[in-house]
Amino acid sequence: MDQTDNLRRLKSIEGHIRGIQRMLEEDQYCIDVIAQIQAVQAALNKVSAKILDRHLNSCVMTAIQGEDAHARQKVLEEIVSVFEAATKS
Amino acid sequence: MDQTDNLRRLKSIEGHIRGIQRMLEEDQYCIDVIAQIQAVQAALNKVSAKILDRHLNSCVMTAIQGEDAHARQKVLEEIVSVFEAATKS
Amino acid sequence: MDQTDNLRRLKSIEGHIRGIQRMLEEDQYCIDVIAQIQAVQAALNKVSAKILDRHLNSCVMTAIQGEDAHARQKVLEEIVSVFEAATKS
Amino acid sequence: MDQTDNLRRLKSIEGHIRGIQRMLEEDQYCIDVIAQIQAVQAALNKVSAKILDRHLNSCVMTAIQGEDAHARQKVLEEIVSVFEAATKS
Repeated sequence: MDQTDNLRRLKSIEGHIRGIQRMLEEDQYCIDVIAQIQAVQAALNKVSAKILDRHLNSCVMTAIQGEDAHARQKVLEEIVSVFEAATKS
Repeated sequence: MDQTDNLRRLKSIEGHIRGIQRMLEEDQYCIDVIAQIQAVQAALNKVSAKILDRHLNSCVMTAIQGEDAHARQKVLEEIVSVFEAATKS
Repeated sequence: MDQTDNLRRLKSIEGHIRGIQRMLEEDQYCIDVIAQIQAVQAALNKVSAKILDRHLNSCVMTAIQGEDAHARQKVLEEIVSVFEAATKS
Repeated sequence: MDQTDNLRRLKSIEGHIRGIQRMLEEDQYCIDVIAQIQAVQAALNKVSAKILDRHLNSCVMTAIQGEDAHARQKVLEEIVSVFEAATKS
């Protein structure tokens, strides 16, 4: 259900990217093209946050409440990795 | 010529985004989906940098060497704006 | 113990920022100053990731394993918020 | 003159970082500490943008209006590099 929303968002981002291709083909002003790329990035950030939210409330919750210490450790490390990649530290 | 490269990059990004949609449809692991979104973002950053490079070497160069002080000011302000948006300050 | 490391990192970042102040006072090349600011930002990202790691393995673990559904929800929402702020979506 | 502003901003950021050290020493809530680190990052982005603005209106302007093609190329490449580092592509 939540993924339906995310799919819809990704379809819209796909259309946005085709729009940017047209901007390049029509040789539109570079700064306007970059602004549209930055808008796509913001939309992608939103999708990532939604997917993370869903992940925390399902897999992470289950793993932490479970008895497998390794699985627990793995889901927590993955969150740190995703955060590090987001800030590209 | 340079834009052909950027168009090719955007076509590839469009395909990448369709791939992420399939990942959602197949209910693949959230963290893997987020990693693919972050890969798309890195690819978009590369396109932005290429377009900025092209812009600096054409419009910005022309404006700064030209005699219109307003046009000069405008291109410089746009670069600061694009940089601010990139760092989202 | 882990916080000792983070404190040490923040002391070092504080020194780095004083170094950047000296660069401005000595009127050093702008691009070099910006590069040093970006180095400080990378170091801050590292500290954030370390603190998040610690947080996940203490407060978040405790809350999720506890019986207070509200506390559980709160810690998960905070992680999404921190991730959104990191990507500034 | 403009650098006086930037120095003042960096002094304030230095104080902010000392404040974050105190938060760690007092064992304050991790998420609040991360939020303060993110506030410092936003402040650093602002300083970077101000320094870039100054740089564009001085060194870059001079180089592009000058006759040294190498110097011209160098300042433009530096701007792309700074932008790439900002987006960490």
